[in-house]
Amino acid sequence: MSEVKRARVLIDCVDEKGLVYKIAKVFYDRDLNIDSNREFVDKERRRFFMRTVVTGDFDENEIAKALRSVAPKDAHIRVIIPKPKKIILMATKESHALGDILIRHADGELPADIACVIANRDNLSDLVKRFDIPFHHIPAEGLERSKHEQKVLEVLEDYTFDYIVLAKYMRILTPDFVAHYPGRILNIHHSFLPAFIGANPYKQAYERGVKIIGATAHFVTDDLDEGPIIAQDVIPVNHRYDWRDMQRAGRDVEKTVLSRALDLVLHDRVFINGNKTIVF
Amino acid sequence: MSEVKRARVLIDCVDEKGLVYKIAKVFYDRDLNIDSNREFVDKERRRFFMRTVVTGDFDENEIAKALRSVAPKDAHIRVIIPKPKKIILMATKESHALGDILIRHADGELPADIACVIANRDNLSDLVKRFDIPFHHIPAEGLERSKHEQKVLEVLEDYTFDYIVLAKYMRILTPDFVAHYPGRILNIHHSFLPAFIGANPYKQAYERGVKIIGATAHFVTDDLDEGPIIAQDVIPVNHRYDWRDMQRAGRDVEKTVLSRALDLVLHDRVFINGNKTIVF
Amino acid sequence: MSEVKRARVLIDCVDEKGLVYKIAKVFYDRDLNIDSNREFVDKERRRFFMRTVVTGDFDENEIAKALRSVAPKDAHIRVIIPKPKKIILMATKESHALGDILIRHADGELPADIACVIANRDNLSDLVKRFDIPFHHIPAEGLERSKHEQKVLEVLEDYTFDYIVLAKYMRILTPDFVAHYPGRILNIHHSFLPAFIGANPYKQAYERGVKIIGATAHFVTDDLDEGPIIAQDVIPVNHRYDWRDMQRAGRDVEKTVLSRALDLVLHDRVFINGNKTIVF
Amino acid sequence: MSEVKRARVLIDCVDEKGLVYKIAKVFYDRDLNIDSNREFVDKERRRFFMRTVVTGDFDENEIAKALRSVAPKDAHIRVIIPKPKKIILMATKESHALGDILIRHADGELPADIACVIANRDNLSDLVKRFDIPFHHIPAEGLERSKHEQKVLEVLEDYTFDYIVLAKYMRILTPDFVAHYPGRILNIHHSFLPAFIGANPYKQAYERGVKIIGATAHFVTDDLDEGPIIAQDVIPVNHRYDWRDMQRAGRDVEKTVLSRALDLVLHDRVFINGNKTIVF
Repeated sequence: MSEVKRARVLIDCVDEKGLVYKIAKVFYDRDLNIDSNREFVDKERRRFFMRTVVTGDFDENEIAKALRSVAPKDAHIRVIIPKPKKIILMATKESHALGDILIRHADGELPADIACVIANRDNLSDLVKRFDIPFHHIPAEGLERSKHEQKVLEVLEDYTFDYIVLAKYMRILTPDFVAHYPGRILNIHHSFLPAFIGANPYKQAYERGVKIIGATAHFVTDDLDEGPIIAQDVIPVNHRYDWRDMQRAGRDVEKTVLSRALDLVLHDRVFINGNKTIVF
Repeated sequence: MSEVKRARVLIDCVDEKGLVYKIAKVFYDRDLNIDSNREFVDKERRRFFMRTVVTGDFDENEIAKALRSVAPKDAHIRVIIPKPKKIILMATKESHALGDILIRHADGELPADIACVIANRDNLSDLVKRFDIPFHHIPAEGLERSKHEQKVLEVLEDYTFDYIVLAKYMRILTPDFVAHYPGRILNIHHSFLPAFIGANPYKQAYERGVKIIGATAHFVTDDLDEGPIIAQDVIPVNHRYDWRDMQRAGRDVEKTVLSRALDLVLHDRVFINGNKTIVF
Repeated sequence: MSEVKRARVLIDCVDEKGLVYKIAKVFYDRDLNIDSNREFVDKERRRFFMRTVVTGDFDENEIAKALRSVAPKDAHIRVIIPKPKKIILMATKESHALGDILIRHADGELPADIACVIANRDNLSDLVKRFDIPFHHIPAEGLERSKHEQKVLEVLEDYTFDYIVLAKYMRILTPDFVAHYPGRILNIHHSFLPAFIGANPYKQAYERGVKIIGATAHFVTDDLDEGPIIAQDVIPVNHRYDWRDMQRAGRDVEKTVLSRALDLVLHDRVFINGNKTIVF
Repeated sequence: MSEVKRARVLIDCVDEKGLVYKIAKVFYDRDLNIDSNREFVDKERRRFFMRTVVTGDFDENEIAKALRSVAPKDAHIRVIIPKPKKIILMATKESHALGDILIRHADGELPADIACVIANRDNLSDLVKRFDIPFHHIPAEGLERSKHEQKVLEVLEDYTFDYIVLAKYMRILTPDFVAHYPGRILNIHHSFLPAFIGANPYKQAYERGVKIIGATAHFVTDDLDEGPIIAQDVIPVNHRYDWRDMQRAGRDVEKTVLSRALDLVLHDRVFINGNKTIVF
């Protein structure tokens, strides 16, 4: 008896004529249903991106193989049977972004398992333990950056995971650390990037007298605050806001934007395209 | 020597397995490039919608015929070579929505020719004539609704046009009138529909004490304010706004939303799907 | 030795000439600093509203008395020394709005003590207990509405509190219940009121094909969904959203709007003015 | 017989205790009605700002004198009887921001008289003349910056005006030019400042892969793109937008933000406070 399965097919390759036809033919020949389908061609970089949800009775490895045989050589092809991804959360001392993810997780709303929380401060320990999630306090005081990261890496080695989510982790990661997890670290920056790069964006925003503040979720790359942007949002402020008011108001945007970006990533809706993203 | 043309292909039909493949094959067999492609399946209504921009050396009638041979019987198929559409503007006395369209048109930004403006008041005559566009004043005073519409229809008969745009035309059209131009009349309603249906929405909004007001661009159907919504937007208000302040503030949203909806329609990006729209 | 205190002074009365002067004189005569000051006159209802933050060495009762001596007879005058208010949360089964308040509370961000959570379902019990807050499960099955409310009232009698916050409490309260706590019950409605009053607003929104959905925080009055609106916000949706997608997307708006409204109320920034609010 | 007049009273001075009382006393002693009143204290800079609308039978010079006698020495006091201000528009070749102001003006919505339009290109001449407004084409080709500005200044000398509005004037003004009209030149910058300072912000935004673009209206000071911000707004974009699409989409935000800022300035609602604004 046949089984009905569902898969997300993600293709990222050099653009060439006939791709949609050839890919659709693979699905058609296997009698698959196309539930949803989105494509994009970056003409400047000549790259083709496609995310298709198919249902039917199939063998995901066989589909992947068939797709590889029709796609350009460089093609990055994934046939994903949806299941919760594993994530590691890193934080410092603020609870809003972390707490929002914990609540969504407790609620069953987040298609992910939280493996553990790692923090360089210990004040969030109570909150995390309320949710029965392992909490690792790895203090950074008196340690060289690389030494501290070495200790974080040691903890990470004990876990299998798909993504690291920096939920207001306030330390800069070295290129060395980032190189361990390319395209797998998400961060929330507390400004509307590229405005207010660097330290204390709310103070910068206050000094500049802006009328809108924002937050930016992005993948982490070597260049601080320069990684591919996944999601951004803003809220209005006015002359009555000092920088602490902006910071307070900004928290809601930060957590919403990070959770939205995380949700997109967990649903395999985000492609990295150079220093940009394609979000389907 | 071959010529490179560009066409928008729009398909709207019952959903069935293999559609994407069969359609892509039509393009592939003719060696066409797919510039962009968007699809949507309404699972509830079991309808398939697709908008593809293709480039290459082709005969649009031949493509349409080929598509019809692979698509379900009921399929509504259009192969459109982009060119300015013809529109008629109807207004009453407010100039903001009308003026925004006139400026865009004068600027060459609007892919449309404005055939004429029809108004039931005459105060906009000067503005319209500044742009060298025919202005028809058809007063409604003392006339039965059907009599007035009869006069409007007589004027319309002298023109060939694709769409009628109600740019703050403050009279209700009869089902009879609407039946002449199914899916071809756009309206801007000065509220965030379905809130505040009917007369003076800003006064209603003020009375209700809302903190946000909006505007809705929609196709006109028999049911007043019930046609398929194309675009909506909102702005914040507060207790300091009386209803005239809301009205004033609302004008910017009205004109922006109408112009955005018009732009989508003129680029053949909008499908009507029952009482809803698909916007690609 | 003198002490520097801070008070929020709230005045709500019939408007008459000279009020600002007379009130400012009370502050001036007592050598108080005005930290911030906001006024509004509702000309239609001829009412005056003022919220002033004063600092200095004062006796709040003496100030209130002095203000009463200069204000119109009907004046409602409050001189409030800021301290955490006591709140009761009521919920049904969804955790997002409740969870957001719990996290803010745990974080010390909420100027309130949560006395307890009351729910007509029991699935939120675990979450609430994680935060060491009393949880009362009062099932409604098989009970007349008044009987169920009677049981709720009995629990409420054991607590002293300032506000009841309905964090997605999905039952309608009787006028009888509401009459116990006039102007003291906040609710989050999962639509951009007055659109989609009543049951399952997301389904209604989906059926109508709107391009924006929203949420409304309001005080509860006798008329369902008709109480004074405190805050509203919206997010864009499109044809790809079915009603469950809208519901999921709407949760972020719901919790943000409720928390924002609660924050305003806890900071004594909201006046009720008939069926509207003044928000300073 | 007494006459009822209306005035906007604007006070900007060092903050000191008792200001509200002393100012309110001036109004009270003259039996004036306070229609609306807004204050703000910038604690960092220790400055007090107040905008009051009073009605009654008064002599504006006498009020100003009385206010000066109770306010600190440095106080900047204005008692303004509302009447249309005179403005000069400067543009280059884009019509959207300019056109929006022309339409509002033609509509009687703008409390201003447009004295003339000055442009360094001539393509907008037709549009401007449609509105019977003088158009001065002052080409910049082959001229040193200072020489070109000299020619502009010569034209400006023939007019009396309150503000210069740069409606997409794409040349940088020298400090010398700006010094002629301190706090009297408004500009619209086509980005969400301080992101994308300098040339072609849309190209920069595209390269950076942002998900939101914006516009900023600000007063012009010596430092390019660094003047006090009056208003900002944003719209979402996505990976399908190339930089020209962003530019096209941005036009609506640009014109809306500039017109909103202009409206605020024309209603005397904007104070300059160092490099920031207070907007009442």
